[in-house]
Order: sequence, then C-alpha cells, then structure tokens
Amino acid sequence: MSEKDQEVKDQELEEEVAELKDLEEQESVTDELTELTTKIDELDDQLLRARAEIANITNRNRNERELLQRYRSQDLAKKLLPAIDNLERAMATEVTDDQGMNLKKGVEMTLASLQQALKEEGIEEIPAAGETFDPNFHQGVQTVEASDDVPANTIVQVLQKGYKLHDRVLRPSMVVVAQ
Amino acid sequence: MSEKDQEVKDQELEEEVAELKDLEEQESVTDELTELTTKIDELDDQLLRARAEIANITNRNRNERELLQRYRSQDLAKKLLPAIDNLERAMATEVTDDQGMNLKKGVEMTLASLQQALKEEGIEEIPAAGETFDPNFHQGVQTVEASDDVPANTIVQVLQKGYKLHDRVLRPSMVVVAQ
Repeated sequence: MSEKDQEVKDQELEEEVAELKDLEEQESVTDELTELTTKIDELDDQLLRARAEIANITNRNRNERELLQRYRSQDLAKKLLPAIDNLERAMATEVTDDQGMNLKKGVEMTLASLQQALKEEGIEEIPAAGETFDPNFHQGVQTVEASDDVPANTIVQVLQKGYKLHDRVLRPSMVVVAQ
Repeated sequence: MSEKDQEVKDQELEEEVAELKDLEEQESVTDELTELTTKIDELDDQLLRARAEIANITNRNRNERELLQRYRSQDLAKKLLPAIDNLERAMATEVTDDQGMNLKKGVEMTLASLQQALKEEGIEEIPAAGETFDPNFHQGVQTVEASDDVPANTIVQVLQKGYKLHDRVLRPSMVVVAQ
C-alpha cells in the first residue's frame, strides 16, 4: 500500500468513526427526548385524574351534606313520637271541673306546638284510615273481613299513627286491614 | 490563487459551515430539552397543588360533616322548647279529682319523655339559679339589690329556663340577677 493510499484509508476510517459517534450521540439525545415526553404524558394523565377526583369529591360531599341536612331531624323526631302519643292519649281523658279544663288546655297547646315543630322540620303523619294498605308505610297488625262497603286491602282502623320525614318512614302506621 | 489553494479554501469553508450547522442543531436540541424539563417542573408543581387541594377538601368536608352531625338537632330542638314550657306550666296546675290526676299523669309522662329525647340528642338545661351570671348563657331581665347573703352577679331567680345543645346556646336563661 502506498503512503497515499494509507492516508486515504485512515481518513475514511476516521470519518466512519466520527459518523458512528454522531449517530450514538443522536440516539442518546433521541432517547432523552422520548423519556421526557413520556414523563410529560404521565404527569398530564395524573393531573387529569387528580382534577377529576377533586370534581368527584366535591360532588359527593355536596350530596352528602344535602342528605345530612334533609334528614337532620330524624333522630330527635323519632324520639319525640312517644311524647306525641302520650299527649294524644292524655287528650282523650274526660274532665269535668275547671282545673281539669285548664290542664287539658295546656296539653292541647303543647300538642299543637309539637305538631307544628315537627311539621316545620318536614315530619308528617302517614295517611292511613280509609287508604289502601301499603307495606312501605303501614304495618298490618290485625285483619277484618272485607265486604261490599270495605274492599280488601283497605285500612279500616289506625291503632298507632305513623310518621314520615320527607320520603323516609320514621315509624309505620299500625293498622287494621280488610282482607 | 492556484487551483489547489482554491480547493483547500473551499474545503475549509465547507467544514466551517458544517460546524456551524452542528452547533445550531445542538442548540435547538438543548432548547427542546430545556423546554421539556420546564414543562415537567410545571406539571409536577400543578400535580402537587392538586393533591394538596384533595387533602384540604377532604379535611374540610370531614369537619363540616362532623359539625352538621353534632348540631343536627338544633332547629327541631329550638322549636320544641315552647312545648316543654307549656308542659311545665300545665304541671303547675292543681288538680283534685281522679280525672285531673290521670291527665296530670299523662302530662308528666310526656314531659319526661320529651326531656329524655332532648337529653339523648345532647340538649340540656343551662344551670342558672344560684349560679354566677354569665352573659353567654343568661339573659338578665330584672335585678334585685345584692346583700350579704346574695352577692352581686348571683342569679336569684329563673323566669324562663334556658337550654344548650352541646356548647351552643339554643335559648339563654331569662333571669333575675343581684346587683
């Protein structure tokens, strides 16, 4: 090989090496870019999920608060029902003298103010007498025979009044049903 | 300029141009890398904030729910106080005959069941008679002169009972205070 040929060969080799190095460098940069882009995609995705979670939590909490608010009186109201029963029973007491009349007047006022308080909180009596029996609201404790006047499934008597808070039953009506 | 010189010069120029192009390319890649890294930092920051917000919302909602739960009976309880007043007044009625006694028995039972219901929901009478006057719980409506037996600021009489739900006053006690 002449000296000149050797030189040319050396140069070719050098160029090849340089090219390879260039390629390597390019590849490593490309790898880095891909890595960063993937990382960005991941973060974008996580951020999207986090924001969706915020929206979900906020909605769920608003719903929970509304439910808590709507049925807030449930526990106390349930506990008041025996007091109302007592007062209604007391009202059935016959009195003849002035003292008894005064007392009865007091009971009447109390009953009215209790019923008013319950009504304002969304509590109302469940309609029963004369209605069609509905197991969601009424509890049948006795039956009588149905007749032409009283068709089957009609409530003929209420033994204990039932109450509901909005759509929730606090206590079903205890009833006698025609069958 | 010889032909050879020209060739050398051309080659030098080409090399210079290639170098410059290389530099430009490197700079543009560096810019891109910087941009992506900045974007990642931004997303990291946003994600961190979003997660902090989730923690905040969750905490705040738990607190709100606890408060709603703790004071849920407030509205109904407040409305029940006149009924209790009425019953207590009715209990002061003197009766002599059996009918009156029966009625009074009914009133007594009602009062007891009302008081029990309120107590179970965290409602209690505000201590007043004999206590030191506290404007947070008592409302002074009359005064009497203080003496050796009754030091200033002592509550000497309760005109209307006050009630609180846990630490919240539903109605202050209406009192007569020594001054």
